[in-house]
Amino acid sequence: MYDYIKPDLPEVMLAVLLGEIDGELTARHIPVPRPGPGDVLVKMAASPINPSDMARIRNVTDPSERLWFVPGIEGSGTVVAHGSGLLSKLWQDRRVACTSIHNTSGTWAEYLVTPATRCIPIPDSVTDEQGAMLVVNPMTALAFFEIAEKGGHKAIINTAAASAVGRMVSFLGKKYKVPVIHVVRNEKQKNSLDDLGNDFVLDSSRDEFSDNLKTLSHRLRATLVFDAVGGSLTRRLMLAIPEGSSIIIYGNLSGEQPEIDHRSLVSDNKKVRGFFLGNYLKQTGTLHSIRNLLKVRKLLGSELTITVRDRFPLEKAQQAMDTYLGNMTAGKVLLIPS
Amino acid sequence: MYDYIKPDLPEVMLAVLLGEIDGELTARHIPVPRPGPGDVLVKMAASPINPSDMARIRNVTDPSERLWFVPGIEGSGTVVAHGSGLLSKLWQDRRVACTSIHNTSGTWAEYLVTPATRCIPIPDSVTDEQGAMLVVNPMTALAFFEIAEKGGHKAIINTAAASAVGRMVSFLGKKYKVPVIHVVRNEKQKNSLDDLGNDFVLDSSRDEFSDNLKTLSHRLRATLVFDAVGGSLTRRLMLAIPEGSSIIIYGNLSGEQPEIDHRSLVSDNKKVRGFFLGNYLKQTGTLHSIRNLLKVRKLLGSELTITVRDRFPLEKAQQAMDTYLGNMTAGKVLLIPS
Repeated sequence: MYDYIKPDLPEVMLAVLLGEIDGELTARHIPVPRPGPGDVLVKMAASPINPSDMARIRNVTDPSERLWFVPGIEGSGTVVAHGSGLLSKLWQDRRVACTSIHNTSGTWAEYLVTPATRCIPIPDSVTDEQGAMLVVNPMTALAFFEIAEKGGHKAIINTAAASAVGRMVSFLGKKYKVPVIHVVRNEKQKNSLDDLGNDFVLDSSRDEFSDNLKTLSHRLRATLVFDAVGGSLTRRLMLAIPEGSSIIIYGNLSGEQPEIDHRSLVSDNKKVRGFFLGNYLKQTGTLHSIRNLLKVRKLLGSELTITVRDRFPLEKAQQAMDTYLGNMTAGKVLLIPS
Repeated sequence: MYDYIKPDLPEVMLAVLLGEIDGELTARHIPVPRPGPGDVLVKMAASPINPSDMARIRNVTDPSERLWFVPGIEGSGTVVAHGSGLLSKLWQDRRVACTSIHNTSGTWAEYLVTPATRCIPIPDSVTDEQGAMLVVNPMTALAFFEIAEKGGHKAIINTAAASAVGRMVSFLGKKYKVPVIHVVRNEKQKNSLDDLGNDFVLDSSRDEFSDNLKTLSHRLRATLVFDAVGGSLTRRLMLAIPEGSSIIIYGNLSGEQPEIDHRSLVSDNKKVRGFFLGNYLKQTGTLHSIRNLLKVRKLLGSELTITVRDRFPLEKAQQAMDTYLGNMTAGKVLLIPS
């Protein structure tokens, strides 16, 4: 039920959906979703394509789900209507960064319905585009350092280090003075990380990678690995890191199942688990989320910006995705409703 | 330095070593080792072949190490000499169960040097043969239930359930009233576990295995898996068990690296780690070890016996190993110095 409806709110909107056969992204007209109690309706300004979007899309395997599943985890926009509730009323008419939780309403659409607790106002100094990327990548990088601190790790290792999360990790590592070993997959990515002033950047395509990682991780006591690649890289990481280290899998850029090593688990007490921001935030609680969002908002307004590589209207979502997949570390690709 | 030497102590002894080329087990004469401070010298009566022995032997890859590495993790015997120290003096002339920690002195020999803290006297009611198997398997099974209790798990899953550890787990599960899902690899093993009065025995070679494990593990809330098999079974276990479950790898009977599943780790918060008794006992401390050894000694004297399948002299160690590998769940194979 709407508490407040802007008079110009349309009946239908453009939204990205998955094609019925091969999952190709298609823009179609569907009804504008209605906010329930505690929800807000956001008129979207911009939303990025993240690796977690791709994972979510891949998981839609039921053909009937393709008819109503709207992708898009995060974005920015303006609250134009709301359901009952104090917070949802408070956000009315504000510019917000938001994340989606309903499968039927993602950010890759003209309008989004989501709980008011999943939105945070963005200050004038932060653009719609930067605001659209406020949550997933920065909150992920922030979580990494919280996990590292809680576990008493002196240094961390991060793979796919040239990605948006990787750059965040590089930024926060310097800010918090936690040494980070950045693992990238080619020379060009190494150069881009070197250029950011990172001391420890290793290219996993080089023969000496394992030896160098072993030496460096033991020297720095880097006993916590965040791995977004998977496949055989996970096993190479596992073999190189110090006894008792943990590997936290948060992505699957290789497209291959992570490989592990029996002896490292059993004799050397190394461990493997996963990280998913949604689960992490649920576990750490709403207050913690809001505190971290405020932290990120402050950083993003001042010291930190995320490179935007290209922008596409919703009608060209598939082209946007292809562009993104063509080079996932060249900057973010945004969807902008026209 | 000896505090006390029995006059009949010889200069040399027979010990099992690894062949210089292909790792074949060979009995050779080498000097009787000398106990240092805190050590005892045990005249061995019996020692079993355990899967962990095989893992340890596989890890000896340096050719020079083959010249002095004596295998054998546990066994029983009589303390015939000791280095300085209260405990080592106390064990003098006692029958003990013991484990080795020095790579140069294993239990597959006529004499063993090991710290007195690694020995525990065995009562008259326990035979040399049963005493020889007091530590590795029973202490492993006991540790599983401690880990389950500490983690608040309501039920556990154990693979290779027809093994000596598996039978221990079956015994302790009933004793502690913790439901156990026993996973075996064929019909014959299933029957042997059924015969022990177990309610939940699943055969992983059957088509319906995954579905049944899924249903049963969710119903019992079996959120902790002990896996001694590895390979593709690990992945099938991972896919079937409830969200948030942990898999603890403690063996590698398949000979294949454990396979895991990306989505189970990331979305479903499932975890993988290893278990190695030596590390566990180090971590839980000496007092805890002694308390558990006393517990096991009591059980072993009364309710619990381990089936012995065959006995071989040290000279026939390779034949003993071949017999064991021929059927690892038919009972234990012991080495008995002649």
